[in-house]
Amino acid sequence: MSVSISRRGQLLPASAIRKLIPYADLAKSNGKKVLHLNIGQPDIPTPPAFWDAVRSYSESVLAYSPSTGMSVFIDALQEYYAAWNLEFAPADLIATFGGSEALIMAMMIVGDPGDQIIIPEPFYTNYLCFARMAAVDVTPVVTDVRDGYRLPPYEELRKLVTPKTRAIIVNTPNNPTGHVVSREEMAAVAKLALEHDLFVISDEVYREFIFDGEQHVSPMDFPELRDRVILVDSISKVFSSCGARVGCIASKNKQVMNSALRIAQGRLCVPTLEQIAAAAAYRARTEYLPPVVKEYQVRRDIVWEGLQGISGVRCPRASGAFYSQTELPVDNAEKFIIWMLTSFDVDGVTVMLAPGDGFYATPGTGGREARIAYVLEGPKLRQAINILKNGLEVYRELL
Amino acid sequence: MSVSISRRGQLLPASAIRKLIPYADLAKSNGKKVLHLNIGQPDIPTPPAFWDAVRSYSESVLAYSPSTGMSVFIDALQEYYAAWNLEFAPADLIATFGGSEALIMAMMIVGDPGDQIIIPEPFYTNYLCFARMAAVDVTPVVTDVRDGYRLPPYEELRKLVTPKTRAIIVNTPNNPTGHVVSREEMAAVAKLALEHDLFVISDEVYREFIFDGEQHVSPMDFPELRDRVILVDSISKVFSSCGARVGCIASKNKQVMNSALRIAQGRLCVPTLEQIAAAAAYRARTEYLPPVVKEYQVRRDIVWEGLQGISGVRCPRASGAFYSQTELPVDNAEKFIIWMLTSFDVDGVTVMLAPGDGFYATPGTGGREARIAYVLEGPKLRQAINILKNGLEVYRELL
Repeated sequence: MSVSISRRGQLLPASAIRKLIPYADLAKSNGKKVLHLNIGQPDIPTPPAFWDAVRSYSESVLAYSPSTGMSVFIDALQEYYAAWNLEFAPADLIATFGGSEALIMAMMIVGDPGDQIIIPEPFYTNYLCFARMAAVDVTPVVTDVRDGYRLPPYEELRKLVTPKTRAIIVNTPNNPTGHVVSREEMAAVAKLALEHDLFVISDEVYREFIFDGEQHVSPMDFPELRDRVILVDSISKVFSSCGARVGCIASKNKQVMNSALRIAQGRLCVPTLEQIAAAAAYRARTEYLPPVVKEYQVRRDIVWEGLQGISGVRCPRASGAFYSQTELPVDNAEKFIIWMLTSFDVDGVTVMLAPGDGFYATPGTGGREARIAYVLEGPKLRQAINILKNGLEVYRELL
Repeated sequence: MSVSISRRGQLLPASAIRKLIPYADLAKSNGKKVLHLNIGQPDIPTPPAFWDAVRSYSESVLAYSPSTGMSVFIDALQEYYAAWNLEFAPADLIATFGGSEALIMAMMIVGDPGDQIIIPEPFYTNYLCFARMAAVDVTPVVTDVRDGYRLPPYEELRKLVTPKTRAIIVNTPNNPTGHVVSREEMAAVAKLALEHDLFVISDEVYREFIFDGEQHVSPMDFPELRDRVILVDSISKVFSSCGARVGCIASKNKQVMNSALRIAQGRLCVPTLEQIAAAAAYRARTEYLPPVVKEYQVRRDIVWEGLQGISGVRCPRASGAFYSQTELPVDNAEKFIIWMLTSFDVDGVTVMLAPGDGFYATPGTGGREARIAYVLEGPKLRQAINILKNGLEVYRELL
C-alpha cells in the first residue's frame, strides 16, 4: 500500500530560472567567480525610509494586521495610483504576498479548473506554476524577437478564444523581454476582452522602469475596460525589496474584490512590518526612484550596445524593466549556458544567464534564447558581456 | 456583455471569525468597550530575541531569500523538531507564509479538483477557504461537546472514505475546541490512513500549548505513518508573532516535498527579516515558552471555572491551545453574540465571541456553540466571563 500525490502536484513545473543553479554552485566550488545575470534580484539599495520604518517599530506584540492590508499601506497605494491617474478606492485594493499571491488569487477568481487563460509568450515563467496551482490551463501565443516581442494583433488573439477562455494576462514592461506595450497593442487586448467577455490580468510590477521617453500603458487607461481589469503590483522591484513579500491586487470589479477579500481573510494577513515600511517607501518614491530608473537605463544601454557587438546575437532595444530576452547564435541556449558554467571562464570569471525556453509554454520554442537580467553595476555588466562574447566565439568553434 | 468570476470565486466562504466585526465596530462607535474573545490574537509579548534580530539586520538590499527558506531558519526548525524527537532533514522542511500557506500547499499536493479531504469538525474555519481555493471537497465528520470533542473511532471514520478521498486533517491541540488528541485517537487516524492510502495533514501550530501534564501526539510519532504525514507549523501562536507570516511545511515524503519545492519556487520566498527573527525566537524558546504556557493554563482555568458557574453552559475542560468551544443555553449563538454587541453591556463593557457554527461544514450543526479565545489577562477574562454570565441571564429572560 502506498500514497501518491495529486496529478496537479506531479505537473507543477520546476523553476526555469533556478534549474541551473547546481551548475553555478559547482563552478563556485571549483573556484570560479560567476556573474549572475540569470535572476531578477536587483543590487540597488532598498530606500532608507524603508529601513527606518522597520527599525523604529516599537510594539511589543507583532500582531495580525487587517486581512485587506494596513490602512497606512492601503492609503499609500491609493495616493501612489492617483499620481498615475488610476483612481482606486480603499475597497479596490488588497495587500498580497508580493505580486505572486496577487496572480494566484486572480487566476483562481477568474478561472475554474479546466478554464483557460491566454498569455503572450515569452512570459514570466512562474505564471505556469500559478496556473497549475489553480488548475487552470495556459493558452500561449508566441511573440517574436524579430519585431521586438510586440503583442499579437486582435485577429490573431481572437483565434485563441474558446468557450473556456476567461482572461488574458498582459505584463508591461515585460519580464523577460523588457518590451513596453504600446497603446495600439493594448487596444487589441481591450477589444479582445470586450468582445469575448474576458478579464484582463495586468502585471505591472515593472511600471516604474521605462526608458527612452516611452509611456506606460495600463489596461486601466481604457475606461470601457475598467470593470474587468485585475491589476497586480509589488514593491519587490520598484523599491528593491524582493525579500519583503508585499504587493497588492487592485480592481474596480466588486465581485473580484469580494472573492479576493475572502482569500485574504482565509490566509489572515501579509507581513505587518513590511507593510509599514512599504508605505514609507512609497512616500519617499519621488526622491528615490529617478536615479534608480536612470541607472537601469544606463545598464540597458551597456547591455544592448555590448550585445550588438556580438556576431549572430539578436536582441531588441527594449525600453522597460531590466531584462533582455536575447537570441543567441547557438542551437541550444541551455547547453551553452551550462557549458559557460562548467567549461569556460575569462581569468576565473564566467557568466550565468537564464535559459530562454523556460519562458515559453509552447513546446520547441525559445530554445535559442536566453534572458539577461541587468542587475549588476555598469563595469561588471561590461565585463559580463565581454565574457559572453568570448564564450560564444570559443563555443561556436567547438561545434 | 459582462464578465463574471469563477464558480470557485463565488463559493469562497466569508470568514466566520471576522463576520461579526461590523457589530463590534458599531458598539465601539457607540462608546462601548468590547472585550474580544473572538479572535486568536495573543496579547503575550513577542520574544525580545525576535525584535533584536529585526533591529540588528544591516544589509542594504532586502533581497530574495532561498525559496525553501533561509538556512538559519531551516537549521533552527531542524534543531527544534529534533528536541521533539522528530527527525527532519533540511530537505524535509520548507518555509511558508505561516501555517496558512502550508495548508494550501498540502491540499493542492494531495488533491486534484473534486478530490475529498476528511476533516473532523468543529475545525479551524479557514480550512474551508483553503479547500475551495484548491477546488477540493471537505468531508466533515462531527465530534461532540459531550465527550470533549474526541476524534471519531476508526469504524466511523472508515465510512467516510470514498475512491476520491485523499487525506485526513488532524489538528491537535485543536482550534476551536482546545482538545488534545490522545494516542488512542491518533491510532484510529493512523489505521485509517494506512488501510485506505490517505495522507495525514497534521496541523500542529498549538503543539507547545498543552496543560495538565498531557502529552502532544503527532502522527509523525507512528513510524509506519511517516511517509504519509504532512506536518504544518507556524511561529504565529508559539512566539506570539501572528504578523510575521512565517511557518513551515514538513514531510518525509519526497514526492510531497518535491511539489512543495515547486510551489515555493513559484512564489519565490517568504519574508527574509522574519525568518532570521524566527530563528532567534526558536533558539530562545526554552527561556521564553514555559511562563507563556503557564499563563495560558491559568487562563484556561479562569475561563473553564467561570463557565461552570453559568447555568446551561456546556464546555469540556480542554487541555490545549487557547480556545474553548462552548455550548451556550440559547437557540442561536450568533444571534446572542450580536445581541451582546448591540444591546447589552455591564458598565459600558461587553464581550465578543466567535459564532460556533462557522467551525462546522455540516449544515445545521454548531448553532448553539461559540468559540472563546482566552487571549486576555486574567482579570479581564474574569470580567468577560462575568459579563457573559449576566448577558445570558438577561437574554434568556427576554425570550
